Amino acid sequence: MIINNGKKLVGACIFGQSGGPTSVINASAYGVIRTALDADCITKVYGAAHGIKGVLNDVLYDMGKEDAYELRLLLNTPSSELGSCRYKIADPDVDDTDYKRILEIFKKYDVRYFFYNGGNDSMDTCNKISRYMEKVGYECRVMGVPKTIDNDLFGTDHCPGFGSAAKFIATSCMEISKDTNVYDTQMVTIVEIMGRHAGWLTASAALAAEFGCGSGPDLIYLPERDFDLSRFADDLMQLLKKKNNALVAVSEGLHYADGTFVSEAKTSGTDGFGHAQLGGLATRLADYVKTELGVKKVRGIELSLLQRSAAHIASAVDVDEAFNAGKAAVEAAIAGETGKMVAFRRDNSNGLYKCDTVLLNLSSVANYEKKVPQEWINDDGNNVTADFISYVLPLIQGEPDIPRENSLPRYARLKKIKATVE
Amino acid sequence: MIINNGKKLVGACIFGQSGGPTSVINASAYGVIRTALDADCITKVYGAAHGIKGVLNDVLYDMGKEDAYELRLLLNTPSSELGSCRYKIADPDVDDTDYKRILEIFKKYDVRYFFYNGGNDSMDTCNKISRYMEKVGYECRVMGVPKTIDNDLFGTDHCPGFGSAAKFIATSCMEISKDTNVYDTQMVTIVEIMGRHAGWLTASAALAAEFGCGSGPDLIYLPERDFDLSRFADDLMQLLKKKNNALVAVSEGLHYADGTFVSEAKTSGTDGFGHAQLGGLATRLADYVKTELGVKKVRGIELSLLQRSAAHIASAVDVDEAFNAGKAAVEAAIAGETGKMVAFRRDNSNGLYKCDTVLLNLSSVANYEKKVPQEWINDDGNNVTADFISYVLPLIQGEPDIPRENSLPRYARLKKIKATVE
Repeated sequence: MIINNGKKLVGACIFGQSGGPTSVINASAYGVIRTALDADCITKVYGAAHGIKGVLNDVLYDMGKEDAYELRLLLNTPSSELGSCRYKIADPDVDDTDYKRILEIFKKYDVRYFFYNGGNDSMDTCNKISRYMEKVGYECRVMGVPKTIDNDLFGTDHCPGFGSAAKFIATSCMEISKDTNVYDTQMVTIVEIMGRHAGWLTASAALAAEFGCGSGPDLIYLPERDFDLSRFADDLMQLLKKKNNALVAVSEGLHYADGTFVSEAKTSGTDGFGHAQLGGLATRLADYVKTELGVKKVRGIELSLLQRSAAHIASAVDVDEAFNAGKAAVEAAIAGETGKMVAFRRDNSNGLYKCDTVLLNLSSVANYEKKVPQEWINDDGNNVTADFISYVLPLIQGEPDIPRENSLPRYARLKKIKATVE
Repeated sequence: MIINNGKKLVGACIFGQSGGPTSVINASAYGVIRTALDADCITKVYGAAHGIKGVLNDVLYDMGKEDAYELRLLLNTPSSELGSCRYKIADPDVDDTDYKRILEIFKKYDVRYFFYNGGNDSMDTCNKISRYMEKVGYECRVMGVPKTIDNDLFGTDHCPGFGSAAKFIATSCMEISKDTNVYDTQMVTIVEIMGRHAGWLTASAALAAEFGCGSGPDLIYLPERDFDLSRFADDLMQLLKKKNNALVAVSEGLHYADGTFVSEAKTSGTDGFGHAQLGGLATRLADYVKTELGVKKVRGIELSLLQRSAAHIASAVDVDEAFNAGKAAVEAAIAGETGKMVAFRRDNSNGLYKCDTVLLNLSSVANYEKKVPQEWINDDGNNVTADFISYVLPLIQGEPDIPRENSLPRYARLKKIKATVE
């Protein structure tokens, strides 16, 4: 719904970051903050410390007091510079305590714009706040800015953060594969990639095989297909008849047909794992390949936090789009939109990749997960098709010009001056 | 000893790569191959498949048949492009079988120059071959080219490969630290870094704390000091009184006073670890912090193979020096040197970093390990001093201009045409 379309709403804005960080979430922050600072109808720009918790705790930073150059450095600073949270807000019809507090803070700072940057849960938070403000008749425009390396947000072609993570994964798999192939003895390397329910990131490892001059994963398993340990064993042993070395990419969310995560399956019983262990899926599968399949040299590697924080190898397309998503949210709110999330629409009509921002109703995106289409997974369930490569390739393009000092990334140094009201 | 100094020795050369790969070992390969191809007294340039095993198995590639552009791409291609090995050659006085075979191959291809690129063990191989050829009176100039990310080679200021690995580690620790600091709840992240006996790489994580705008490891433990679990617990808990989040960098080679590796210590008994587990040191220490120290959010991260293969973030200084080491080896051999390893000598005399190549006798470097000086470790044994930072900083400088296709690294595609003799 659009309130006061055509009439400018004057007041302060709050911006918050939520959920797991990405390499480019701060690029969206800069898109919001810069555009809001430059907007004549936005009187103050506040950054919430640790997302919605900063609103609830009344810890807001005055972004207008930051140095312009330092703010610009947010474009290449990974993780959530204002701090993040994983705070689950209640249903306002059940418990409206948090909402009353948010309204109190909004009134205290004359907040008329609220921008929230996050994934599924954050869009849900955004949607609930939007509905509550509408219900109590407090005029405030609420906009969601998407982010998630997992790329599982519904209704958008892709999410800011995904392209850079995909690029790190593809490049790392090329490099790891080069290392795996170095000896003339049999060696298997298993790389575990993030994605609990959706396999977009793991699928991106296929870019390494496609463009890596022969170095990339030989087998790729996504959570969109049930994992079958004996089929995996067959796949791998068939491969090792043809070549000495194998690189396997697995999604952390691999699960058996009964839904049990492979990383959490009981360690005694019929699942083929001999003994108890900690460590993630890669370690577990590596141990299986070693002890049950008899491969002597096996290594499990977890890409871990690096895949969501390696801003040094971000995609320039991703950085630009993340910035644009933040900017578009502010522009749309000023134009009168509320209760929406900025989404990306891909336009391949002239054969070249082009990406526009569109607006979706928050209620239509919150809590839905977008998975890799089944038809983009090969029949054997151990790799992806050319359609997936065509989808992901434009998203990893370009090297951002990263400011450096001493050949190390120069991150933003914000003053984070706590906001006050006279 | 110098044979035929001043008189050019005409014949073929063999180049081989050995030991664990690095991001820049192929830059040294290019230094050797390019210089040898351009030298009028070197008739043929052969690359040995998988190091000395390629010589023993008579699998040599004719480098003269490679495309010049593809060869040049070796400058930015990680890992050992010709393949590596971990073959331990016998003492020639005990068993000279291998040496007779090497001599046979050298004669078959009229090899008068042998260049071997590797770490401690490879320099030992090089030294033994050199001594054997001298003993049997076969004129052949044998030169070692250093490489090892571990930086533990004796007699050289630093090793090719170390600077790039240090840069990856510093940058990754900055990025991981940003991620670790994102929530307002207590969180500990433990990063495990390579280095079984020497802590150079782990120490390099300190660059992140020094230049990372507040993001870097808070505690750093090297194998040059005995590890004390209860002291570690004290260090960490003291830190967590002052701040919510902690990043700890540990060397894989951490050991207790009795010499037992922390990663391999018995899991039942007095070492403080509650139960059996696989996984490396990071996983193990993370589990200890969680179960014994009661920190709820703990994550162990192993940088694993990426630290030795992440050519995408190589140091330009390291790439240049690696190339120069290979070039210098060929030039010295042509000038009459043999039985030597190229080493680096640092010249800080005018306050600027400068690095020259010098030659050391192979017998003086083989089998000695260079460790981080005790005085570069702080009194508490949980960080490094400013002297270490001054030492390592020049080695990570500069961003190489990496050829890319589709925004992914474009690696060398060698034809690897097997050499024959007419």
